[in-house]
Parts: sequence; C-alpha cells; structure tokens
Amino acid sequence: MSWQNYLEQNQARYLDELIDFLRIPSISSLPEHAGDVAKAAEWVAARMKRAGIEGVRVMATGGHPVVYGEWLHAPGKPTVMIYGHFDVQPVDPVELWESPPFEPVIKDGRLYARGSNDDKGNMLLPIVAVEALLNTTGALPVNVKFFFEGQEEIGSPTLPNFIIENQTLFACDMVISSDGGQYSEEQPALLVGLRGLSALQIDVQGPAYDLHSGMYGGAVQNPIHALARILDSMRAPDGRILVEGFYDRVRPLSNEEQAQIAAIPLDRGEFTTQIGLTEEDGFGEPGFSARERTWARPTLEVNGIWGGFQGAGTKTVLPAQAHAKITCRLVADQDPVEIGELIAAHVEQHTPPGVKATVQTLPNAATPYLMPADHPGNLAARDVLMAMYGKEPYYVRSGGSIPACTLFLNTLGAYTVNFAFALNDERQHSPNEFFRLASFEKGQGAYCQLLERLGR
Amino acid sequence: MSWQNYLEQNQARYLDELIDFLRIPSISSLPEHAGDVAKAAEWVAARMKRAGIEGVRVMATGGHPVVYGEWLHAPGKPTVMIYGHFDVQPVDPVELWESPPFEPVIKDGRLYARGSNDDKGNMLLPIVAVEALLNTTGALPVNVKFFFEGQEEIGSPTLPNFIIENQTLFACDMVISSDGGQYSEEQPALLVGLRGLSALQIDVQGPAYDLHSGMYGGAVQNPIHALARILDSMRAPDGRILVEGFYDRVRPLSNEEQAQIAAIPLDRGEFTTQIGLTEEDGFGEPGFSARERTWARPTLEVNGIWGGFQGAGTKTVLPAQAHAKITCRLVADQDPVEIGELIAAHVEQHTPPGVKATVQTLPNAATPYLMPADHPGNLAARDVLMAMYGKEPYYVRSGGSIPACTLFLNTLGAYTVNFAFALNDERQHSPNEFFRLASFEKGQGAYCQLLERLGR
Repeated sequence: MSWQNYLEQNQARYLDELIDFLRIPSISSLPEHAGDVAKAAEWVAARMKRAGIEGVRVMATGGHPVVYGEWLHAPGKPTVMIYGHFDVQPVDPVELWESPPFEPVIKDGRLYARGSNDDKGNMLLPIVAVEALLNTTGALPVNVKFFFEGQEEIGSPTLPNFIIENQTLFACDMVISSDGGQYSEEQPALLVGLRGLSALQIDVQGPAYDLHSGMYGGAVQNPIHALARILDSMRAPDGRILVEGFYDRVRPLSNEEQAQIAAIPLDRGEFTTQIGLTEEDGFGEPGFSARERTWARPTLEVNGIWGGFQGAGTKTVLPAQAHAKITCRLVADQDPVEIGELIAAHVEQHTPPGVKATVQTLPNAATPYLMPADHPGNLAARDVLMAMYGKEPYYVRSGGSIPACTLFLNTLGAYTVNFAFALNDERQHSPNEFFRLASFEKGQGAYCQLLERLGR
Repeated sequence: MSWQNYLEQNQARYLDELIDFLRIPSISSLPEHAGDVAKAAEWVAARMKRAGIEGVRVMATGGHPVVYGEWLHAPGKPTVMIYGHFDVQPVDPVELWESPPFEPVIKDGRLYARGSNDDKGNMLLPIVAVEALLNTTGALPVNVKFFFEGQEEIGSPTLPNFIIENQTLFACDMVISSDGGQYSEEQPALLVGLRGLSALQIDVQGPAYDLHSGMYGGAVQNPIHALARILDSMRAPDGRILVEGFYDRVRPLSNEEQAQIAAIPLDRGEFTTQIGLTEEDGFGEPGFSARERTWARPTLEVNGIWGGFQGAGTKTVLPAQAHAKITCRLVADQDPVEIGELIAAHVEQHTPPGVKATVQTLPNAATPYLMPADHPGNLAARDVLMAMYGKEPYYVRSGGSIPACTLFLNTLGAYTVNFAFALNDERQHSPNEFFRLASFEKGQGAYCQLLERLGR
C-alpha cells in the first residue's frame, strides 16, 4: 500500500485522535494547568510510540517537559529534528467562544478548539506522516528526531539550558518546525527571517521628591520633560533611529531579498484600516516599504511611559521621576547586547542637566535570525510546496522573534525550516481558534513528501 | 486706657480663647468633619459679637459657611475687608505628631496644634485688635468688614458664585488678608505677586488598540514617541518655552521690581540641596535669577505622563495611546484661557503624522495677580512693619496661586494686602504645626496700628 492510501484509510482515526488531544487543556501559563501540560506530554509520547517512533521519552526540563523520540536507521542520510509544541494559550475572554475551547466542534470543514492549529493540529502532522511511511515502506527516507515542548507559549524559559545539557542527543543537520503556517489557501510561504530583540528601561531621577510646581517650577529641571527630550533625541521625525551606531551592523538587503519581499502583495489601505488608522497615517523610515520596515529594518519602540500625576483633574506637581520602557527589534547582524550599550551611551550623552538618567537592560534579548533561502531544507520544502500549490512560495519574514529558531542555531548549529499549515485567519491566541480540516489532511502528505525529498 | 494696655491686660484670656478655638477639628476636606467646620463658624461669630462687631452672621455658601460682620461708623474713611479662614488641613500622618493635633500644647514659647498659625492664630488677630480699639477708643479708625471662610484648604470651590451674589455686601476699598506670614523673625515682607495657572491634558491616539511591536513596529507611528516630540517641541533645552506667543503678554519686570527681588537673599546651594539636588543641577530660563524664574516668569510643567505598559519586565507593545498633564504658571498680563489656546494651537502644529492629538482644558485656571508695591494698603502696611521691625520689608511674590486674591480683585475690584505673622518654619500643613506666642502677641498690636494708619 502507498502512504497516500494509508493516510486516506486512516483519516477518520487521525481526526478522532486530534480531537482527543485537543480535549486536554494544556495551558502552560497557568500553574493550575501544569498537570494538563504533563498529561499532554504523556499523550504525545504514547502517540509517538504507536507510530513506531523509537526511544520515546518525556524529559524533565525544570519547567514543562519535552517529549523526545527518534528513528535513526538511515545511514548516510541527513538527520532532521522535528519541532512542535503541545502547550496552548489561555482561553480568555472565554465568553467570546461560540463553543467551549476544550470541547472540539467541527463546522463547515473547520475544527474549532484552543490549540487546533497552534500547534496541536500541526504537530500531529509529522507523527502521522512517519507512521504512514513506516507502515507502508518499513523505513524513513532520513534520520528523524522529534522535539516537542510544553512551554512555547510562555517563551520557553528553561529550554536554553536544557538544550545545551543535551546537545549530543539533539544533534542534527536541520530542524523542521511544525509551528507556523502558509500565506494563504492558494499561496505557500517559507520563513527566512526573524527580528531580534533588545529590551531596556530608562529611569530619570530629578529632585528627591515631588515638588510644588508653583514654588519650584521654572528653576528645577522637570524629569518628564527631560525624558521627553531623551526619547525625542533617539528618533528623527521621519522615523529614522538617531542612536549613534544603531544601523552600523545592519546587513543591507540584497537585490534578490528586496525582490522576494516586493513580490509579496500588501494592501496598504487594509494594513492601516485594520488597526483603526487611515492611509494618510502612513509612517516609517524613508526609502523602505512597509514590509521592509517591519521585516528587515530595526526599530526602537517606546512600549510604555509613566511619571508624576496620572489621576483625574490637576495636581500641580513637578515630579521627582519619569520612566520609559523600550524594545528594539533587531535585524542581522545587530547584536542585542551591543544595541543596549549604544542606547545607554546615547542616553548618557543626551540627558539634560538637572536630572540623572540610568538605563537598565531587561530580559527577553533575542538575536536576529536570517535563514538562507537556498538552504537545503528550504530547497526541499520549496519543491514540495511547488508540487502542492503549483506556485513558487513567498519568502516571508516575521517582524517578531521565535526564540527556538535562534536557540537551535546557536546551540546545535542547525537552521530551522518552517513547514506548517496554519493560516492567518484561523485566530491563533484568540477566541474561536480553528484549523481547516483540508489543511490537516494536506499537511500529512506534505510531511511524507518533505521527508522523501530530503532523503534524495 | 490705651489699646496697648488693654491688649496686655487681656493676653492670658486671648491665649485661652485661641486654645479653645484650636480644639475644634474643623478639617474642611473630610466630610465627617463638616459639623466641626460649622461649629468653628459659630465660635467665630460668637467671638466677633463679643468684640463689638456688628451685623455678625453665618452665611450659607453651598459649601462650608462664611462668617460676616461689620463696623461701618467711620464716614469719609476707607472700608477695608478683613479676610481669614477657620478651616484647617487634615492631620495625616497623625503618628508623626508629638502631641495630639487638636489638644494644643505650649512649649518653649510655641503653641502646637493644627491650625495654630494657618489660620486660626492669625485670623484671631484682627478680631482681638478691633475689640481693643472699640473698648478703649469707642470707635475704629476706618470702616471694617470681616469675611472669614471655611473652605480655603479645599480651594474655596463655592466662593466665586457666593461673592458675586453678595457683591454689594462685600464692597470695599481693599482686602486685608490674615492668611500669610513674614519673611523671618527679623525681616518683614509684603506679598506683591502671585502666579496664575492654566491646566491642560494632552491625549494622543494612534492605532485603535495596542499593537504587537514585532508585527507593526517600524511602520506605524508610536503615540508615546509622538507625545515626546510634542512635549520636546514646547521647551528649548535651556528652559525657554517655545509655544508660539507664550511670552507675548508678559509684563517685563521694571528696574524697581528687579531690585526688590534681588534684595532678597537666596542661598542657591541650600535651594538645591534641600530638594536632593546639587548646585550643578541648576536649571532655568537664561537671563533670570532663580527667584525671578519662580516668582516672575511663566512656566510650562509636565505634571504627569502615562501610556502603554508600565509593569515589571517587558511587553513588546506599540501602544494605542499616550497622555500628559500640563500646568502653566502664569504672570501678569497672561490670560489662562489664551495660554490654553496657544498651547492647543502649538500641539496641533507639532503633532507628527500617524496620530491624533487633542488638548482638553482642566479646571483650576487662575489669573496672575500683581499688586502695586505702592498701593495705599501696602504703604500703610509698610509703615507699620518698618516701625515694628526697623527694616524695609522685602517685596516678595509667590510662585503659587491664591484664588481668593484674584477673586476679590475680579469681583470686588479690591486688591489684597497680606498682613499676617506665620513664619516658614512653623510647619503649616505638616505634623507639629505651631505658632510663636510672640507672633500672636505682636500681631494684635500690629493690626491696631494698621487700622490707625489706614484711617489717617
């Protein structure tokens, strides 16, 4: 029997299994659901064993567990490690769900449940594909390791040390991530870039305590005004960042990369109206498109600001302090630590007289991630997607950060190929999350093809 | 008998009366003490009647009452209205008081109690002085009205309408305020200027909701950065306000006024170290001394700012809104309403693209107040103070606002002479407020002399 026929014959069972998996409320951010995350890990381990995967184990990480498994009987072939996660986001606001988030419902070819596409539906695809290949061909085309985690939705805090401690076990030539999606039902995509992150807080201290603005106003520097000056000095009116050296390490986009980004349509009007703005509200660094600004250019955003009186009415105070939180999105080859130092130096140089300003680094630093479009994993995925969709994939980036990609690259030296089938309208992290049954089915065969293509 | 002898003989009784008055916890800001404020009003009315003051009445104002009285038998002589207040500040933090705030204690020639100098001790002075004059000379040298209020410590919210409604009753040539003090035990002072106030809030709205800083950062204007730009555009690095037209109506200091201000010593080091700064932290509009900056120049202070994420750690958000509260201290002849309009126009002109900024006017507007140093009331007070202290008074201003002074000027056309004997170290509004017994005694005779001098 072909794996195609095997998948077809077992489709009803796979759907039942996914529904069963989705009933486990494995919310990683809520301590009262820690037992459910552990239960989901056990569910995954059992399912992997049934698929014929070997050496399956639930591993303690200091946080939520990791489930590992392997099939390593393809000598001379590459070793790929498949990544996914079995934890899910919280369900608030639960009153907006049309059916209970952990009681899966099928409607119009869509499976509604928390985690249906992010990531339980997607992470089940490679397990099912491997089962189909093993049960029909008796072997896999490449060596495969599985790495499923239970803390993705809380930023994988204990993974860095855990991966370093188990570097040999997880050694591989590339990672394939089941956590992601395609551009649309008709258009495939490959993720080739993620921005990094540097997070800081600026604290401005003026007088020892809040002063009467009548008694002292005009003769004492105002910390809020000083902070406004510091923040304003960091950015030109047109959006360019003025922190000295900020752009020095930015790798310019090649003509090919520019073309790849330009090939992806963007309805500028839709982009702005979706967020309650009009097209005239357009803003950003000159010389770059909106996509380039969010995907391939670094930013400096003030995330929050506070100081002095924030209540109703008036309080005639000259405040003692003012504070701001800043995050920079970084691109290759910027370094989060160096960017933090450049900002601290800029703040020092631009602090007006009469106040002290200090800059503290906050956690959450991430190195920018750029994957070659012609990486063997991408080339294989491209071929599979071309065959499935009849179209060249878009080479997309994300303006956000996925810590796992950087982690695997830095500790295992392995790039991550994004190979998953969620779509943007499927309400990940929101009420009424769903996964298209067509995607669930299509993705199983896609994984079989990808493994075959990698084994060639 | 001379009024001097009369005062001397009755000194023990006056002190007992003040102690009795101080036992009433007439805290105007606490609703549970409204009955005590009313009780203090009755106490004042009874005491005025005993002094021989006529037409004494407790008047309803819609808030705490006003006590009025008069003696109008000096035809051809000016009519002065004496102002004071019988309400007091709250006593928190009460644990810092060395004796209970409403159980007066005398120690080392000082009378400790809430309200001892602000303003019960001071407002009793003119009543006692009038009693002494009436009982020894059978008449007063001028026509006198009394206006004692019970809501000074909460900003006299119902007085404006109340005074307008009783304009004829309160008509007078000048007001003499018993709410204030002298420069030091050796140095007299006359208050000739108060700054006005204009209060505003700036609200900046960007996208309809907080955005993911990875998905949108770089392509959407950040409201906090926009607000920082607006605030920064309002003030030059050296402290000058850059709002167009801001200084247009400022009446320049005359040479005489400059000299009057320069005559008052200021220890610049003490000024800064008191508030936790060093002398190098000196700041303010170039070309003016620290006293000129706080007394005679207008300011624009940011009292508070807020927007976006203010918690611990990092939230990678591009916030939807940012807000700031501003108060301007104004000097003659600036107009609070016009200043608000100038700022609104400035904000409109300096709002970066991609956000909407609105300016709302907050209550608490006050017109700047400047009293001629050679006003007949000031000349009379100067002569009395010269005789008492052997020194020319300092012509001081306050960087703050006293709404009553503006109110009397605008509705009655009467300037207010500040004539009272509190000193700066007597902890008004703070725990362990006290009044020097020497000031209490000295002030009684001072009021007799002032009325005599005004009658000449």
